[in-house]
Amino acid sequence: MKTGILTIGNELTSGRVQDANSAMIARAMQEQGWPVAAMLSVGDDDAAIHDALAFLLDRVDGLVVTGGLGPTADDITTAAVARAFGLELYTDAEELGRVRAFFEGRGFSWTENNAKQAIFPQGAEIIPNPRGTASGFALRRGDKIVTVIPGVPAEARRMLFEGVIPIFRKAFPEAALHVETVTFKLFGIGESAVDDALADADFDGLGVGLGSYPNFPEIHLVLTARENAPDVAARMLREAGERVEARLAKYIFAKNEKTLAENVARRLTEKGLTLSVAESCTGGLITDRLTDIPGSSAFLERGAVTYSNAAKTALLNVPEEVIRDHGAVSDETARIMAEGVRTSAGTDLGLAVTGIAGPSGGTEAKPVGTTFVALADGNTTVCRSYAFRWDRRRNKVVASQVALMMLWRYLSKGSRSDE
Amino acid sequence: MKTGILTIGNELTSGRVQDANSAMIARAMQEQGWPVAAMLSVGDDDAAIHDALAFLLDRVDGLVVTGGLGPTADDITTAAVARAFGLELYTDAEELGRVRAFFEGRGFSWTENNAKQAIFPQGAEIIPNPRGTASGFALRRGDKIVTVIPGVPAEARRMLFEGVIPIFRKAFPEAALHVETVTFKLFGIGESAVDDALADADFDGLGVGLGSYPNFPEIHLVLTARENAPDVAARMLREAGERVEARLAKYIFAKNEKTLAENVARRLTEKGLTLSVAESCTGGLITDRLTDIPGSSAFLERGAVTYSNAAKTALLNVPEEVIRDHGAVSDETARIMAEGVRTSAGTDLGLAVTGIAGPSGGTEAKPVGTTFVALADGNTTVCRSYAFRWDRRRNKVVASQVALMMLWRYLSKGSRSDE
Repeated sequence: MKTGILTIGNELTSGRVQDANSAMIARAMQEQGWPVAAMLSVGDDDAAIHDALAFLLDRVDGLVVTGGLGPTADDITTAAVARAFGLELYTDAEELGRVRAFFEGRGFSWTENNAKQAIFPQGAEIIPNPRGTASGFALRRGDKIVTVIPGVPAEARRMLFEGVIPIFRKAFPEAALHVETVTFKLFGIGESAVDDALADADFDGLGVGLGSYPNFPEIHLVLTARENAPDVAARMLREAGERVEARLAKYIFAKNEKTLAENVARRLTEKGLTLSVAESCTGGLITDRLTDIPGSSAFLERGAVTYSNAAKTALLNVPEEVIRDHGAVSDETARIMAEGVRTSAGTDLGLAVTGIAGPSGGTEAKPVGTTFVALADGNTTVCRSYAFRWDRRRNKVVASQVALMMLWRYLSKGSRSDE
Repeated sequence: MKTGILTIGNELTSGRVQDANSAMIARAMQEQGWPVAAMLSVGDDDAAIHDALAFLLDRVDGLVVTGGLGPTADDITTAAVARAFGLELYTDAEELGRVRAFFEGRGFSWTENNAKQAIFPQGAEIIPNPRGTASGFALRRGDKIVTVIPGVPAEARRMLFEGVIPIFRKAFPEAALHVETVTFKLFGIGESAVDDALADADFDGLGVGLGSYPNFPEIHLVLTARENAPDVAARMLREAGERVEARLAKYIFAKNEKTLAENVARRLTEKGLTLSVAESCTGGLITDRLTDIPGSSAFLERGAVTYSNAAKTALLNVPEEVIRDHGAVSDETARIMAEGVRTSAGTDLGLAVTGIAGPSGGTEAKPVGTTFVALADGNTTVCRSYAFRWDRRRNKVVASQVALMMLWRYLSKGSRSDE
């Protein structure tokens, strides 16, 4: 069973509003195992809607249309759909009563244009709107179904799940497969190298779909299995997941909706470890990411954004001569920053980053993007150097990512990489 | 001149990723005076791309296609477009050299699938990609033009403005009215209040279009004038801009592409003032935003992310009894944080934020979202309190925004608000 989405509104084709419904509906269709063949947006225009319906109904079995069901003059979707299908319009007395009651119940004054929301094409099955005035409707045309719901995202979402999907499931019972997905989040490897690594994994043979989605600076791999029996889909997915982990374990830092900062925060909390952070080029981005996680005050004692050399000396006890002899961006300085913040904060761990974010400040020996990341635990201090080649913002993002990855790997010793 | 947009990618039709390019491109087309007739999304599928091109080319003069230009097996846009147009493919030697150099320059290992990004349809005009490996291209078909650019939003945006729009303007000179736009960025006022304030400004009478785009936590007002003569458009826009400023000056912090952090950074640099920042609930977000600006080391001495009370005492000299008597989130603590960071850093200004980002940690007297922001300059210390009602991340974002706005207003005394 193929599906399509048509979103209608001048606010979409003018770029004034970003279409939030298409992705939401597409995801719901995908989860049901009904691939979306096309998503189309047109303005509030009779001919454009007619064309769009014809194009989509040639290609799909079930179509979801949103938008243009309101009371104003530019809301023409119902009339345009009826005309495209050669159907007359009628006013539904029950719906008219409901819309009037909606207004009266909220003390809004009734204006006659609202009666428009009780008009439907002949033969339509009405899809109730529990959150607003404009109900939707479904029409059959041969073995195809068109459903029309409002464009207001909160209304569209609810009517999709309570109206459209049940109608589709009933009309296309054979297509109501069980769908399972799992996402692996990776860092430190490029998209083409991921492709190479998985070349022999034979997901097709397993019947599992694979998608790779770059999400700077991460890559998200999504595995999808569709089966009649939930346990079969789950088993296929488990097997496919093991093939991913066997090939790419060291790059995986999270599964599904979890973020790197969230996983780092969880491990620190589980192990009862405290952390302090010293940041130069990342400018506070590492602690910003960590403090996005509720409860981060349990492990994060402090962060020091030591942009000046004086601050490195005052807050982190980096000796002036180390900066003079090796530079503020150096292995030596990074190590002392990590140890210094750890000692002064009295935490279990100290994490430090120093680098040149650019666009200026680079030298031949240390070009823009040169970055040192260090982690101190009181016994040992490790430090790694990197040469990033992005713009200033992305150099910061990727530097914060390598620092959090260093922490994640440290905290994951002896654990499964993605738990 | 009618335009259309085709975005290609399984990540779109599966709902995994929300299509950010369509709205961005639609808005740019609208600003040029080229209405968008339809926006279509299909998966990485040869037949679907073929159908979509046929549908759109029947209806538009200029088509913008994004996505599917990468190195992996599912990136088939170039091949599909060539097949739809009956064109052979060739490898462009110059582009191949550029892609290889891109890899070598970053120390990435070369994999052969990347050579794909140097393959183009015969007769294509190459659209350079200044930010990544995949260049785009333009093809003519009769009096119509198809342009193809990558789906990565930052690359798509730049190539749209530097490649696609100039190509369209040259091909359709009669549609190339002179378009001028100006954007005012506002904070501290809601969208409907902006609407109210501008109700009597009569932009229609001036012939100037007005769009308002919420961009949390900011509102961006875009004025657009389209005229044959550039000086006429500029004059209309100047007059309209004065009407906006007369009504909303105190909310305006930037014009056009400038950001709040950029304007704050510029003022600090111009005035030769230095800054230190003490952050609790914002967790480093303020210094992260400031250090996104090249040259911020000229004014930013340090930031202290004092998440624990001990850190507030150790780094900012906040007396333990102040925290005990008034709380870490209080007017008193915020003032001493600002003064403490200023004194210990030896800077001209000290900025401090303390608050409860949530979701937990609130009390009846100080609910989640309670936030104090203070600015000290050595003579006086001002402090304001706020009660935010967003989720944790957005409480952090809006707290960083009010702090930077406080700094911006302090630095703008006696200056025009938006310069």
